[in-house]
Amino acid sequence: MDSVKIGLIGFGTIGASVVRILQKNGDIIGQRLGASLDLVKIADLDITTDRGVTVAPEMLTTRAGDVLEDPAIDVVIELIGGYEPARSFVLQAISRKKSVVTANKALLARHGDEILSEAERQGVAIRFEAAVGGAIPIIRSIKEAFVANRIHAIEGIVNGTANYILSKMTDDHVDFQDALKEAQAKGFAEADPTFDIEGIDSAHKIAVLTRLAYGTPVRFEDIYVQGITSITREDIRCAQEFGFRIKLLAISKFDGTSIDLRVHPAMLPEDKPIANVNGVFNAILVRDDLMEENLLVGHGAGGLPTGSAVVADVVDIARDIRSGSRGRVPPQAFPVASLQNIPLKKIEQIEAEYFLRFLVLDKPGVLSRISGILGQFGISIESMIQRRRDSEGKGVPLVMMTHLSREKQVQAALEEIDRLDFVCEPTVLIRVEK
Amino acid sequence: MDSVKIGLIGFGTIGASVVRILQKNGDIIGQRLGASLDLVKIADLDITTDRGVTVAPEMLTTRAGDVLEDPAIDVVIELIGGYEPARSFVLQAISRKKSVVTANKALLARHGDEILSEAERQGVAIRFEAAVGGAIPIIRSIKEAFVANRIHAIEGIVNGTANYILSKMTDDHVDFQDALKEAQAKGFAEADPTFDIEGIDSAHKIAVLTRLAYGTPVRFEDIYVQGITSITREDIRCAQEFGFRIKLLAISKFDGTSIDLRVHPAMLPEDKPIANVNGVFNAILVRDDLMEENLLVGHGAGGLPTGSAVVADVVDIARDIRSGSRGRVPPQAFPVASLQNIPLKKIEQIEAEYFLRFLVLDKPGVLSRISGILGQFGISIESMIQRRRDSEGKGVPLVMMTHLSREKQVQAALEEIDRLDFVCEPTVLIRVEK
Repeated sequence: MDSVKIGLIGFGTIGASVVRILQKNGDIIGQRLGASLDLVKIADLDITTDRGVTVAPEMLTTRAGDVLEDPAIDVVIELIGGYEPARSFVLQAISRKKSVVTANKALLARHGDEILSEAERQGVAIRFEAAVGGAIPIIRSIKEAFVANRIHAIEGIVNGTANYILSKMTDDHVDFQDALKEAQAKGFAEADPTFDIEGIDSAHKIAVLTRLAYGTPVRFEDIYVQGITSITREDIRCAQEFGFRIKLLAISKFDGTSIDLRVHPAMLPEDKPIANVNGVFNAILVRDDLMEENLLVGHGAGGLPTGSAVVADVVDIARDIRSGSRGRVPPQAFPVASLQNIPLKKIEQIEAEYFLRFLVLDKPGVLSRISGILGQFGISIESMIQRRRDSEGKGVPLVMMTHLSREKQVQAALEEIDRLDFVCEPTVLIRVEK
Repeated sequence: MDSVKIGLIGFGTIGASVVRILQKNGDIIGQRLGASLDLVKIADLDITTDRGVTVAPEMLTTRAGDVLEDPAIDVVIELIGGYEPARSFVLQAISRKKSVVTANKALLARHGDEILSEAERQGVAIRFEAAVGGAIPIIRSIKEAFVANRIHAIEGIVNGTANYILSKMTDDHVDFQDALKEAQAKGFAEADPTFDIEGIDSAHKIAVLTRLAYGTPVRFEDIYVQGITSITREDIRCAQEFGFRIKLLAISKFDGTSIDLRVHPAMLPEDKPIANVNGVFNAILVRDDLMEENLLVGHGAGGLPTGSAVVADVVDIARDIRSGSRGRVPPQAFPVASLQNIPLKKIEQIEAEYFLRFLVLDKPGVLSRISGILGQFGISIESMIQRRRDSEGKGVPLVMMTHLSREKQVQAALEEIDRLDFVCEPTVLIRVEK
């Protein structure tokens, strides 16, 4: 049987899972492909730690160059993550006409233009299904299954750590910090969870999807990003009373002129299927002009799910190689020549319904002042909950849902309200997505 | 710009939608493909009915041969449905080395062996994403995204008509016949709804998925199929009381030895995401050794969703043609040489939990007789509801959920129970899927 030769750079959790999958399922992969995938070299700075898989010692190297410079290797898998040296390694592989598989969303979000365009120029395949949504086949769906469709919107729960924390806070009525600690204890959150809980990882992923869906470069810095660290138990409880769930949502909507691209906690009606995707699961909803909506749900992280997406990408490339196909699908879904710079909407330009949680002293006239200011800014209230009376003088929560309002007006109103002397702390704003 | 030439056989709802999509989204398809899809001929016995799309009169023909024999046509789309003449047309196209796109699940379920194997032998691409789940990219996911995975199970709500009827019965507490009438009035059910409500269409679809998932031929006649016509409002209400939803489920489970392949109404715990897929939506859950589970939800029918899957298949083939690729992905996910005959389990061999609804006269000793017989057959009861007393002498419903039991034993017990003189009608059995 023919074989396709693979080199792996990065022998961490996902790298080790890729090795395990190739060993465990090599038979069925070989049957489906009609060839074997032959892993010939693994590079990592640390080649002494036990990764839980057995590999021939001569396969291991601490020099990425040993993979990149090996003329026998057809496909390079990059799994070291981060910007550098990942960027250099990937560009080097491309310049040597090696195909690339990567799971590196940070790299693609920041350097997608350079890397993906270079791959197209060199006629080299680059695939990155594992970069978004783990085992969820969202990238190939956008590039291939929805190729006839004009995509209008993508909404995703694309960070398993944040979703685990919010689910935990919802189910067990615990605070953010306790849920985070448990996520860390269970291995669902890293020691430094910043990228996950601050929404940066989600922003990387929606940047990648946006590029593919609409055929536009995306400046990562221009994405509005808000994490989940300020969400409280109280917010979640109030959301439930109004019939909503709070999820960290990555949103990308295209109205034909500009793209509304943002990551923030959002309130979702509890009867929406995506609102019921809990724990470390991810979910991505695609809306377009032909199929209304398509929802994909699966494990968004973890070695084996993510590794299975990596290996599927390798099989895709092996199929290209074996069938003599080159440049079959453009790396960015659209050929570089068809990309267009579509402007992003600023967050002030969006319209939404809003959940507002004020913490106010329990005094006469408070409600009328707040609702008066909201009214001045053209914001009308759809419903309201006032909590129990203030026993400790620390303020009482006052919670409102607005009708459709302009973000700019809401921000201006909150600035004025938060200056009032009976308002105890900055007002919490959570956007509603229906 | 290059073009790929297409001929269409079958100008019904989906055919007209394909034409509309090519017209409406030709620009974006052209950008993504780097070539145009050029529909040159449409064959249908009826070329006079207004299909709501404008086509040049000279494109229309009543002779399928005008499409099949046209040497300029690269890709033939078959959308006439049914077994013949669809089978002959598809085989003719293949023998003339034309690639084929079809949405015909009945054809693939019955003649999949012949047609798909012939396509592989001739090195011709045949794609059929639209045959299962409309716009849901399940077929390419199984063939490409999950290529490294050992699939264990597929569970699907794959018939929108049946799902609409059951959802309607659940939400509006109406009887089957009323829900069916409404589905017909809304165009969600055909005048003759047999295939949909009797589970035959679902069986066609799960037969196709089973073939691809495990690499086995499937004898359609051997699939256990039970429709939804005997489901009553009362069953649905009881299911709800136990925390379940009733769905028409297509199930295909592979334990490494044999396949448990069946279509029947099933009770699903209401907190399972698939239990909350309602109306005409379809949902397909795939379980395997690497990614735990992946759920895809979308429009399972309708002209535009299904048409978008057809056009995406055409684009796939156009990409093969333009990139010089041939035989890139085997039509059956596995090459013919790797197919294995995996036996199907008989329904008597399965184990499940069961919902049983007895209709009994309200007499002393009834419950002890029934539970006694169940006990003799090794069936233990997990919970029970006895309804209001019998006012009209027509019997009272007695509802039980069993623990995990053998189907064979359950069938035998029910046979004995249904012979008792206080049992008013044949006992309803609904399998539980957890």
